[in-house]
Amino acid sequence: MIIDCHGHYTTAPKELQSYRETQIAGLKDPSYVPTKGTLRITDDQIRESLENAQLKFQRERGTDLTIFSPRASAMAHHIGDATTSLHWSQHCNDLIHRVCRLYPQNFVGVCQLPQSPGVPPGNCIEELERCVNELGFIGCNLNPDPSGGHWTAPPLTDRYWYPLYEKIVEFDVPAMVHVSSSCNANFHATGAHYINADTTAFMQFLTADLFKDFPALRFIIPHGGGAVPYHWGRYRGLAQDMKRPPLSDLIRNNIFFDTCVYHLPGIELLLKIVPIDNILFGSEMVGAVRGIDPETGHYFDDTKRYIDAVDRLSAEDRRKLFEGNARKVYPGLNNKFRE
Amino acid sequence: MIIDCHGHYTTAPKELQSYRETQIAGLKDPSYVPTKGTLRITDDQIRESLENAQLKFQRERGTDLTIFSPRASAMAHHIGDATTSLHWSQHCNDLIHRVCRLYPQNFVGVCQLPQSPGVPPGNCIEELERCVNELGFIGCNLNPDPSGGHWTAPPLTDRYWYPLYEKIVEFDVPAMVHVSSSCNANFHATGAHYINADTTAFMQFLTADLFKDFPALRFIIPHGGGAVPYHWGRYRGLAQDMKRPPLSDLIRNNIFFDTCVYHLPGIELLLKIVPIDNILFGSEMVGAVRGIDPETGHYFDDTKRYIDAVDRLSAEDRRKLFEGNARKVYPGLNNKFRE
Repeated sequence: MIIDCHGHYTTAPKELQSYRETQIAGLKDPSYVPTKGTLRITDDQIRESLENAQLKFQRERGTDLTIFSPRASAMAHHIGDATTSLHWSQHCNDLIHRVCRLYPQNFVGVCQLPQSPGVPPGNCIEELERCVNELGFIGCNLNPDPSGGHWTAPPLTDRYWYPLYEKIVEFDVPAMVHVSSSCNANFHATGAHYINADTTAFMQFLTADLFKDFPALRFIIPHGGGAVPYHWGRYRGLAQDMKRPPLSDLIRNNIFFDTCVYHLPGIELLLKIVPIDNILFGSEMVGAVRGIDPETGHYFDDTKRYIDAVDRLSAEDRRKLFEGNARKVYPGLNNKFRE
Repeated sequence: MIIDCHGHYTTAPKELQSYRETQIAGLKDPSYVPTKGTLRITDDQIRESLENAQLKFQRERGTDLTIFSPRASAMAHHIGDATTSLHWSQHCNDLIHRVCRLYPQNFVGVCQLPQSPGVPPGNCIEELERCVNELGFIGCNLNPDPSGGHWTAPPLTDRYWYPLYEKIVEFDVPAMVHVSSSCNANFHATGAHYINADTTAFMQFLTADLFKDFPALRFIIPHGGGAVPYHWGRYRGLAQDMKRPPLSDLIRNNIFFDTCVYHLPGIELLLKIVPIDNILFGSEMVGAVRGIDPETGHYFDDTKRYIDAVDRLSAEDRRKLFEGNARKVYPGLNNKFRE
């Protein structure tokens, strides 16, 4: 079984975006009373949105199951307030739930959290609980920067986040560290903000004792861990200078990287440097990069091809990378899918 | 000749730091009138600060010349105002000038600019001119985020920066994109803020037509280009999706990466992916990572060793990497050092 840990519903029917636009327009109207409102999307529309995209690519690329969450760039936690984010998150999560019910063998849900700048993360517990206990979701996406590129929240290692972590551990779900769109003109979303957030989160984890307080807390750092594997020597050296644990100990049970790196040399580096137990197959498909690489004739984000081309992996390594590690990090998979 | 394009005076005599502390203390005193003040450091102190550090490492590692600038993390443009930064930059630059006069075969100067949040970059022209025309400096360090981790300035591609670029081009000096310390708790300076800034700057350059306006403007993106070479496929794909030029065209005459990547697999990736004409040897020595790698028994930042270990480089490639590219990017070298 080949499990892709990183997919977003980037192809949702346009009604979702229309809902959001109406919601945002309402924020500018002083007389507007926020309501959750309704979202009318038919099952056929959902099927159509997936058949020629994620499902087609699953078939073509030979992957089985995508761990699926709302479009990351559209979370935009910086827009409106906690109520805005709650209504938006609920609709987005409900839509993921419908996808998972229509295609229970192809998709399993991960939720968007109703974060909002300045609002304590504990405010997200209720929606997390709903998604895990009622919708059967197996993880969440956690935005380390709900301000959208202004980085106004405390670091992920701050006690500010602990109430949410307590529930995440209680529910035994992992969190993917994933920012959303950027409202800071310095940061292109998928080209800078995403990658920076990955690098930033790793360095936060390196410098604090978060996992002493939460030994069972698990984070996936997506996009191949940002800059981290490329600069692994730098991080090993910084850890040593700061008398922190060796990186392999630091990450062992708590930090995992996906394989969303869109060329073979990058994947080769990742697989050579990072312990295989800490890498989960992911493609971010359909996501940040949609084109075909003229150098290979294949989609940039067909990351399975790169991994297949790496000779040095044993059969056991591949099993871990494509399935075993995901089952370990997302225990919810084991209740739904047999090995 | 082996030219290290990236060295900071991280070992300056303690009087420099004392000056800065006094300056910062003054900022808290409402009755304090900012004055440049004096810095008393003897030539012997300067010699002592270098002999067992940069000079020793140059000899041990077999490098000849370091392109040398004030300590990047100490620039701290976010402290005080433009006058604070001007006084501090002048002292730091003067000290680099003294280093270069004491060891004219070992060091050549690059200046710190007196940037300050919210102050137009054109305000730095006078100090740049002094450093180039009076002190014989051959480049400058340009901080894309003078706010120290809050990223309040416009992107480097904004016309906001153009008056400074006009002078940089007129003086025919390159700029190394280099942030300073971070006053945002999210960003560890050398582990996150530095690398993020490199990635961010590259993506800014990718999405704008800055080099159409300034065909002769040259930037060095340090720390091996941040996350960029590792995610080269992502950037190629993003450029293609956005109908931007191929990366090799985008960077050709304008964007250069140094080799401050502290392990062999990272250097291998860099040298495999980025055109050799766009890579400059650099070590950031003595800098971010000061220890010895227990896996190799050598200093993490002895980047020459990694490059020496890469078989695939031709003699001509090595000449470009260690000398030729630096002479191209920093034409000021040619007036001072014969090939």
